[in-house]
Amino acid sequence: MERTQLKRRAQRGSHDRATIDAIIDEALVCHVGFTAPHGPMVIPTTHVRLGDLLYLHGAAGNAMLSTATECCVAITLLDALVLGKTAMHHSVNYRSVIIFGRATRIDDPDAKRAALAALLDKVEPGRADRCRPPNPRELAITLVVAIPVTEASAKIRTGPPVTEDDPADADLPFWSGIIPLVTTRAAPIPPRT
Amino acid sequence: MERTQLKRRAQRGSHDRATIDAIIDEALVCHVGFTAPHGPMVIPTTHVRLGDLLYLHGAAGNAMLSTATECCVAITLLDALVLGKTAMHHSVNYRSVIIFGRATRIDDPDAKRAALAALLDKVEPGRADRCRPPNPRELAITLVVAIPVTEASAKIRTGPPVTEDDPADADLPFWSGIIPLVTTRAAPIPPRT
Repeated sequence: MERTQLKRRAQRGSHDRATIDAIIDEALVCHVGFTAPHGPMVIPTTHVRLGDLLYLHGAAGNAMLSTATECCVAITLLDALVLGKTAMHHSVNYRSVIIFGRATRIDDPDAKRAALAALLDKVEPGRADRCRPPNPRELAITLVVAIPVTEASAKIRTGPPVTEDDPADADLPFWSGIIPLVTTRAAPIPPRT
Repeated sequence: MERTQLKRRAQRGSHDRATIDAIIDEALVCHVGFTAPHGPMVIPTTHVRLGDLLYLHGAAGNAMLSTATECCVAITLLDALVLGKTAMHHSVNYRSVIIFGRATRIDDPDAKRAALAALLDKVEPGRADRCRPPNPRELAITLVVAIPVTEASAKIRTGPPVTEDDPADADLPFWSGIIPLVTTRAAPIPPRT
């Protein structure tokens, strides 16, 4: 687990699986890093976790999914802006996860269907049963890969700005505190007919 | 610009700098991918753009910033969930940017101060003037790097689900449309005193 050893601000880190899973499950997108022929590459994509596996999907010809065997997946939830009385003590509150692992292609049609259904149910519970499931052709042109959520770590910052190092700073006449960031779903919009 | 050539769904892509800059400037975090000694690595961090340069910062000992010379920065804004009548035509609306480049350390104190001030003003316009600026010690322990926003591309999906391929699917009795995702700032919370 050398890669997941927390280096900077290790007190903010965790290897607790319940903590890691909750962040993965709340996030709607992840960023997948891998080494492409031309160098480092990062691609945003949707994901879903089932047990110990993180599933990604894409078109059958997707270069990332078919070549990114060794990868690093970063998942980040931004919770608040943190404003200190000094420039130095500005920060952000966040919950993030980093997963290292090898992406393996899922060929079993039932396992592919289960992963794709879980992806829909994550968007909206029960959605997989409220649309037409993939037919054999659609399943064939969809590539699904899985990465184990075993070599993973979480990093979290919560709470107010840290106390200023210098007592003189604490008395500065500037506002300090946090501005929470909230992501909500607006009213659904049907397509024009 | 071979690296920024759009492969999949090229019709969604753009190399227009105004489009790219608007996405960079709206996003509060980016994901920086680079090749670490153990393999691919992705780190979330805050960023600010000034002209043609994307600035990142961290502690002076930050391994990513001091070693990630060649990197790929991904910036992603998630705008909506897209629900089709078939599983296949579910998607997300997004605006994303990918930047390839080399991170260069900024040593000039004035340039560092300008980048850090811009980072604060991005959080809240005028904030850099409403807190104590970095003193020489703080500036010395803060590493600032810049990556040129020249080798970059944007990719955007907007609008309703695509029309179902099969007319029979278009008549299925399932809801389709988009669910917009909106990120707002909640009421500021001062620290408990």
